[in-house]
Amino acid sequence: MQWRREELHVAVRDPAAASMNFLNEVAARFPDAVSLAAGRPYDGFYVADDIERYLRVYRDHLASTGLSGSAVDRTLLQYGRTNGVIGDLIARTLAVDEGIDVPAEAVMVTAGCQEAMIIALRGLCAGPEDVVLAVEPCYVGFTGAARILGIEVVPVPEAADGLDPDAVLRVAREVRESGRRPRGLYVVPNFANPSGVSMPVEVRQRLLEVAAEAELLILEDDPYGLFGLEDEPRPTLKALDREQSVMYLGSFAKSVFPGARVGFLVADQVVVDGSGRRSLLAEELSTVKSMLTVNTSPIAQAVVGGVLVESQYSLRSANRAKTEFYRRNMRALLAALELEFEGDSRMTWNTPNGGFFAVLNVPFTADEALVEVSARDYGVLWTPMGFFYAGGGGERAIRLSCSALEPPRIEEGVRRLGKLVRDRVL
Amino acid sequence: MQWRREELHVAVRDPAAASMNFLNEVAARFPDAVSLAAGRPYDGFYVADDIERYLRVYRDHLASTGLSGSAVDRTLLQYGRTNGVIGDLIARTLAVDEGIDVPAEAVMVTAGCQEAMIIALRGLCAGPEDVVLAVEPCYVGFTGAARILGIEVVPVPEAADGLDPDAVLRVAREVRESGRRPRGLYVVPNFANPSGVSMPVEVRQRLLEVAAEAELLILEDDPYGLFGLEDEPRPTLKALDREQSVMYLGSFAKSVFPGARVGFLVADQVVVDGSGRRSLLAEELSTVKSMLTVNTSPIAQAVVGGVLVESQYSLRSANRAKTEFYRRNMRALLAALELEFEGDSRMTWNTPNGGFFAVLNVPFTADEALVEVSARDYGVLWTPMGFFYAGGGGERAIRLSCSALEPPRIEEGVRRLGKLVRDRVL
Repeated sequence: MQWRREELHVAVRDPAAASMNFLNEVAARFPDAVSLAAGRPYDGFYVADDIERYLRVYRDHLASTGLSGSAVDRTLLQYGRTNGVIGDLIARTLAVDEGIDVPAEAVMVTAGCQEAMIIALRGLCAGPEDVVLAVEPCYVGFTGAARILGIEVVPVPEAADGLDPDAVLRVAREVRESGRRPRGLYVVPNFANPSGVSMPVEVRQRLLEVAAEAELLILEDDPYGLFGLEDEPRPTLKALDREQSVMYLGSFAKSVFPGARVGFLVADQVVVDGSGRRSLLAEELSTVKSMLTVNTSPIAQAVVGGVLVESQYSLRSANRAKTEFYRRNMRALLAALELEFEGDSRMTWNTPNGGFFAVLNVPFTADEALVEVSARDYGVLWTPMGFFYAGGGGERAIRLSCSALEPPRIEEGVRRLGKLVRDRVL
Repeated sequence: MQWRREELHVAVRDPAAASMNFLNEVAARFPDAVSLAAGRPYDGFYVADDIERYLRVYRDHLASTGLSGSAVDRTLLQYGRTNGVIGDLIARTLAVDEGIDVPAEAVMVTAGCQEAMIIALRGLCAGPEDVVLAVEPCYVGFTGAARILGIEVVPVPEAADGLDPDAVLRVAREVRESGRRPRGLYVVPNFANPSGVSMPVEVRQRLLEVAAEAELLILEDDPYGLFGLEDEPRPTLKALDREQSVMYLGSFAKSVFPGARVGFLVADQVVVDGSGRRSLLAEELSTVKSMLTVNTSPIAQAVVGGVLVESQYSLRSANRAKTEFYRRNMRALLAALELEFEGDSRMTWNTPNGGFFAVLNVPFTADEALVEVSARDYGVLWTPMGFFYAGGGGERAIRLSCSALEPPRIEEGVRRLGKLVRDRVL
């Protein structure tokens, strides 16, 4: 049996995924190129020996709650509760680190944050008229998840301070007027991927009002909030949420390590059925979870659980070294851009106050063809911002990532990029 | 914010999942009831201490292939290859145990077999006219997965020997005549869940011919093949497949343990794109996988990888004790049915040659209401076969599972069931 590729689901031809595959291919062909494209966390924080210790800490924790040895074994090795077994530890950590106060039952543990997005989208969008809004440029994992499910994503243009709440209202109104139902709004309030942009506190407050007004559930994704240049207040939307307008999508990929593939969602919204029975949205969504992956590997959950217990429920304090590292890297990236491009009015860039990404605007088209040239002839890789727009946009902008490298390589990468830029604009 | 339950996705109201939730609820309310409903593997084979050893074995294996210590650490803890890192070990095990000869690139490691089903369904069904066929009664994980994706499942009635290949042809033709495209056929050839039925070798051969004729990809799910009463030949369809007509869906939930949540799919079909570039279907499906869960937890993969390495790539030999256990259990279940119901012509049951399940036909309606009565007044739980039919069927049949208990409890359960039956038919 053989297929024509066109016969397979559109998702298999996801343009964003194709772009990411392209980047990986180019990276593989030019292994000596400095990658300012890779957004993964730095490798140096991880040692596999730690896994055993975390497993042990979690098992001891279970034993300390009164579980017998065989009950502990079952917890790790048998089928488990659909919504996971470390929801209580996650709820406790959210309270300590973020001031988010939710019951353990509002937490669903997922196979990474990607699955949390799929579950949120599937649960909220019941019919073909249901769409979601997303700030654009948008993380491709979110648009890709929606494409897998056949759910339309309607872009809301990003503003310099993250989002213009009035733009949200306007887009939601337009969507309704066209006969569709806007069900949610995807936002990354801290150091967004790809733009690096963050929302001021007053924008967050206003966004919550707008969401309640427009009956939009905010899907808040916050993988980078820990990694700020300054310890300024960056309250999560969920911490500010008084009306259950926010579903929080959580990741441990940066705060623990990606290999656990453990994420979570917090959905404390009340759901009422025809007979008046009340439950939490997270509990209702367990039906979706059970049909996607049954439950998240309890072994992987145990590893993350061990990290949470060992950190005394504060990833913020457990991550001080990582936070310092990423701060230093972002400073190095911004300083290198300054050194390389200062005084050239054709070149502009934003200066995120933390996170993994910054955006450089260039006076020429920065597309896949140029990435290839850049890798081959200049030894530097980066991501075209065009990848993050569904219907055009970002053609003359570059996403630069500073998470996976150490400062000397970041500086070398920016120098190489400078050479490319000068050759292009001459 | 608050929702009416009806506004959420239909999948959240999945009837099969609701039924399973109901069963779990009843089980929780009557903890002393003997459960002939639970299809999970027996607990006694699992010790959490083993996890550390398996991790160590896998890390040593990686080191033996030449990976440095930090490369081993990265493999376990960083983002990884979308299709997984133990595909080579799985391919080797399939060759040893099943005579399935496929390249490692044809294997995708998934977050349990459930995710493999979702990925297969999504990859194959590109438009609203694309449907899949499934033998009915059907495992609810498959129909539930299709429902999450909005894909229609068209039933093909099960026969006493598993499947009438001509019925497949007829249903496929009817589907085509109605303007839809049948893309795949889901079957469990060995000891199917829920019916316990297996296909004779000649039916398997004929089914492969029929599939090629009808251009149907067979989705072969085989979680129970290892656990036969006799060591008769039970070649997988994939082992017999000469035309790449079969995608094999694999689970380690029974052969290793459920807590790993590691499954896989084998898709060695060639896909050709517009420019003539050829790839394997498993590689193309990586786009779907990446948008569902990015990649399967490499920690969980490492645990399973350690099991495969330690078993010298033979789960068949590693599982001798389990196979003996489940054989003894199935014999105990069938003997108990014989003892309890022999001579009563109103009661019939099938006699599967292995696996976890048998079906008892009863002369009354065996529905949810009766499950509740059975648990409360008779102390025994079972599964209505009606749960496994989409459009009616199985109303007077009961699925009995023998996997999670030891023989004395199985016998006690059947005795209690006998009391219920006698009270009903008097």
